[in-house]
Amino acid sequence: MSKETPGKVDMEKIVSLCRRRGFIFPGSEIYGGLSSCWDYGPLGVELKQNIKQAWWQAVVRERDDMVGLDTSILMHPQVWEASGHLKGFTDPLVECKSCHLRWRTDDLKESKCPSCGSEVTEPRLFNLMFKTFMGPVEEQASTVYLRPETAQGIFVNFQNVLTTTRKRLPFGIAQIGKAFRNEVTTGNFIFRSREFEQMEIEFFVKPETASDWFNYWLEERLNWYVKLGIKKENLRLRQHDKEELAHYARQCSDIDYLFPMGWSELEGIADRGDFDLVQHSSSSGKSLDYFDEETKEHTVPYIIEPSAGVDRSALAFLCDAYDEEADKDEIRVVLHLHPRLAPVKVAVLPLSRREAVVKLAKELYADLRPCWMVHYDDAQSIGRRYRRQDEIGTPFCVTIDFQSLEDEQVTIRERDTMNQIRVPIPTLKETLQAKLGGEDLFVLPPGGSIWKGEF
Amino acid sequence: MSKETPGKVDMEKIVSLCRRRGFIFPGSEIYGGLSSCWDYGPLGVELKQNIKQAWWQAVVRERDDMVGLDTSILMHPQVWEASGHLKGFTDPLVECKSCHLRWRTDDLKESKCPSCGSEVTEPRLFNLMFKTFMGPVEEQASTVYLRPETAQGIFVNFQNVLTTTRKRLPFGIAQIGKAFRNEVTTGNFIFRSREFEQMEIEFFVKPETASDWFNYWLEERLNWYVKLGIKKENLRLRQHDKEELAHYARQCSDIDYLFPMGWSELEGIADRGDFDLVQHSSSSGKSLDYFDEETKEHTVPYIIEPSAGVDRSALAFLCDAYDEEADKDEIRVVLHLHPRLAPVKVAVLPLSRREAVVKLAKELYADLRPCWMVHYDDAQSIGRRYRRQDEIGTPFCVTIDFQSLEDEQVTIRERDTMNQIRVPIPTLKETLQAKLGGEDLFVLPPGGSIWKGEF
Repeated sequence: MSKETPGKVDMEKIVSLCRRRGFIFPGSEIYGGLSSCWDYGPLGVELKQNIKQAWWQAVVRERDDMVGLDTSILMHPQVWEASGHLKGFTDPLVECKSCHLRWRTDDLKESKCPSCGSEVTEPRLFNLMFKTFMGPVEEQASTVYLRPETAQGIFVNFQNVLTTTRKRLPFGIAQIGKAFRNEVTTGNFIFRSREFEQMEIEFFVKPETASDWFNYWLEERLNWYVKLGIKKENLRLRQHDKEELAHYARQCSDIDYLFPMGWSELEGIADRGDFDLVQHSSSSGKSLDYFDEETKEHTVPYIIEPSAGVDRSALAFLCDAYDEEADKDEIRVVLHLHPRLAPVKVAVLPLSRREAVVKLAKELYADLRPCWMVHYDDAQSIGRRYRRQDEIGTPFCVTIDFQSLEDEQVTIRERDTMNQIRVPIPTLKETLQAKLGGEDLFVLPPGGSIWKGEF
Repeated sequence: MSKETPGKVDMEKIVSLCRRRGFIFPGSEIYGGLSSCWDYGPLGVELKQNIKQAWWQAVVRERDDMVGLDTSILMHPQVWEASGHLKGFTDPLVECKSCHLRWRTDDLKESKCPSCGSEVTEPRLFNLMFKTFMGPVEEQASTVYLRPETAQGIFVNFQNVLTTTRKRLPFGIAQIGKAFRNEVTTGNFIFRSREFEQMEIEFFVKPETASDWFNYWLEERLNWYVKLGIKKENLRLRQHDKEELAHYARQCSDIDYLFPMGWSELEGIADRGDFDLVQHSSSSGKSLDYFDEETKEHTVPYIIEPSAGVDRSALAFLCDAYDEEADKDEIRVVLHLHPRLAPVKVAVLPLSRREAVVKLAKELYADLRPCWMVHYDDAQSIGRRYRRQDEIGTPFCVTIDFQSLEDEQVTIRERDTMNQIRVPIPTLKETLQAKLGGEDLFVLPPGGSIWKGEF
C-alpha cells in the first residue's frame, strides 16, 4: 500500500453512504461493534451477490475448462500442517512493556510503542489462524482451525474432482467462500477484516505451460474488472520481487486498485508450481498426480491461482462508481455502478398520488419485480427521488404520469446521462432488458488472448 | 425423528450417487475425513446455489415486504448472552467412567456406556457453540463464538434496516449463511452436521396479527417445497407441544420431510413473540421498537421465523427426486429434479465423432453455455450418455446427428418421459427456454392465502 498516491474518493464518504443507505453496517453495532466485522445491509447483500454471480458466470458457467466447488470452513488439522500454515502463517508481534498493547513489527518505525511511547519487547511469532475445538472436550486433539483461505479445500479435492468430472488438463476449480484471519492490524473499512469472503480459482496445467497460463489469467482477471466498469487508470499490475514471494510461489503479481488509502491489492495471481499437490500427497499418502492418457505419463500439475476478495471487489466497485457532479445549484451524488452490479435495477416512480396513476404504477412494479430487483418510491418530489436512486446506483427510473393514462407510455430516465425517453408500456420490459443486459453496456477489453503488458 | 416409518429411498444409495457423480464428498477426505463436515462437488455446488437462488427469488426479490441481509459469522459475545445461547444452548452429556466417551443422555436407554457397557457419570451441561479467540491474546476477554444461527444477525440490525429502508410493518428480513453447532451426535449424511447453511426469515408484524402471519408462512413455505417438486405425501406439519417449545417461542411447527431415516425436520416456523427485540434492547440499552406514524404509537413487533436449512433442503430434493425405473432389461437411475434446481440444464451429445457433426455440436454447446449450465459429452454409446445425464437430473439432452447437417434440426430428449422431439436449430434456444423456465413445469399449489390444514 503506498500512501503517497491516494485515490480520488474520500473513504469517509464511502463509509457514510454505505451506512446511510443500507449497504454496509458495522457488525453487532448495537453492542458497540465487533472489531473489523461488517454486516451487509439490504443493498449491500444484493451488490455482493451480483459480484459473486458475475464472477461465477465468467469463470465457471461460460467456460468449458472450469468447475465449481464449495468446501467446508472447518477442515482436518493436518491440512494446515501440510500447507505450511501451522508453522508459517504468522505475524511477528511486539508488546509494549508499559501498556501491553501488541503491534506488528512492520507497523513500527522505532522500538517504541506508537500508543504510549514506551519500549517494546522483542518480536515473537503469532499464528493468524482462528482456532476452535470440535467435539465435547477442549484439548489439543480436538483443535481445528477456521480456514484462512479457501484454496486448500480445492487442493485436497483434486482427485475427487478429477475422477467425477473426467476433466483433462488444463482445467480449473473455482470456489467462493468465507475465510478468517486473526489479523492484528485491520482497517480501511471492508478492505482488511478478520472475516472475509474469497473468490478463488486453482487452475491446473502442464508444468511447461505454467508461464503462459499465468499471463493468460493476469489478462483475464484484469479485464473482468474493466468489463464491470472499473476505470483502467485505477488498475495496475505489480509483480512481486523475490524477497516478497510467498514460500509456495514461483511467481506472483497483484492486481492493485487505487483505493482511497492508496494503491492496494485487489487480487493476487500466483504460480504455485506443484507445491500444494506435492505437500498434500506426501502428507496424506494419497496420490495427487494426473495421468495423461495420450502420453501415458503421470505428472503433478502446476497451479495458477487467481485469488480475489469479494469484499475488496465490492469496495473497489463502490469507490470507482462514486461521483459528485455539479447539477444546477446542487451536488449530485451518483454511483455509476455497472447495471449488472447495481443492487436495484429499476425504480418505479409515480408522479402523482392520484388513484389511477398509483394503480398503473403498482401494476408495472408487480410486473417488473419477478425479472429484476425493483424499488417503488412515491415519497417527496421527483427530484429527491431521482437523487435517492442515483446515490444507490439504480440505472433506470420509470416515471408514470397523467399522460401515461392517456397515451399508455411511460418515461425511462437514465442514471448516468439523465436523459429521458418515452416508451410504450407494452415494450417497457423488453426495452429495459435490452438496456440492462445488452453487451453494448460493457466497456469491452482490448483483444488478444495473452496479456502483453501494455495495459 | 420417527424410525418406524422410513422413507422409500435408501440413504446409502443417495450417499453413493452423491460421492460417485460429484455432488458431495466427505470433507478433508484424503486425511480420513473430518467428522460430519462435507464438501460440495461440481454438481453439488450448482444444486445448492440453485436452491438458494430459488429461495431468495421467492422470499426477497418477488416480495414487496422483504429485504435481504448478510451479517458476519463472528458477533459480539454479548449477543449470545442476550439471546440466551450462552446459558441455555446446551446438551446434557454423560461420560463413561471406564472408556471416557461422552454421550447425549437422550441417546442412552440405560446408564451404561453404549460402547463398552460400563457405568456413566451424572449428566452435565455442555454448550453447543464453537468458541474461538479474537486478537493476539487467548483469554476470556477475547472469546468470541461462531454463530449457531443466522437469526441474531437480523435482530441486532433491526433498527439499521428500518431506518435505511423506511419499511412499514409487516415486513421481513431474509438471510442465507453458515452457522455452526458443536453437536455431539451428528449423522444421517448432510442432515445434521456441525457446519451447515441456513436460510432464515425474520418477519416483523403487529402483535395482534402474529397468529395469522404464522399460518400464512406455514402455507407459504410448504408450497415453496411443493412448487419445486417435493411430493406432497412426503411432507407433513408437526406442531410442537408445550414441553417441546423453545424458551423464546410462543408456538412452533415443523415442516417434516420423510427422509430415508424417517420423518424429520426440514424447516421450523416459530412465533418468537417479542422475545428477541426485548432481550437485545434491554441488553444493549438501544431502543428496538417500531413507531407507527399513523397511530403515533410505539410497539415492539412480534416475529414469525421460517428457518430452513440449505443442506437439509438439498438432501430432501435429492431423495425426493431419486428413482429407479425398469427400462427394458436394465434399471434406469434418474433424478427427477425440478429443472430450476437441476445442476445441469442441458447436455449436448453428438451422435458421431465425424468432424462436421462435432463442429456443429460444439457450436451449439458454445451458444447455449452463456444461458445455462450445459454439459458436452461424446464418450461411449448414446444410451450410456443418456443414463449419465438421467442420474444427475439433467432435464434435457440435445442430440446432433448426420441428418442435422442436412435438415438443420436436432433432437431434444426429455429426462422424465424419455420423449424425443425434433426442432429446428434456430428455435432450439427458445424451445429450451420455454421448457426450462415455463411456469407449466411447476406443480402449482392449491390457492388461498391462509393455509387451511387440508394438506
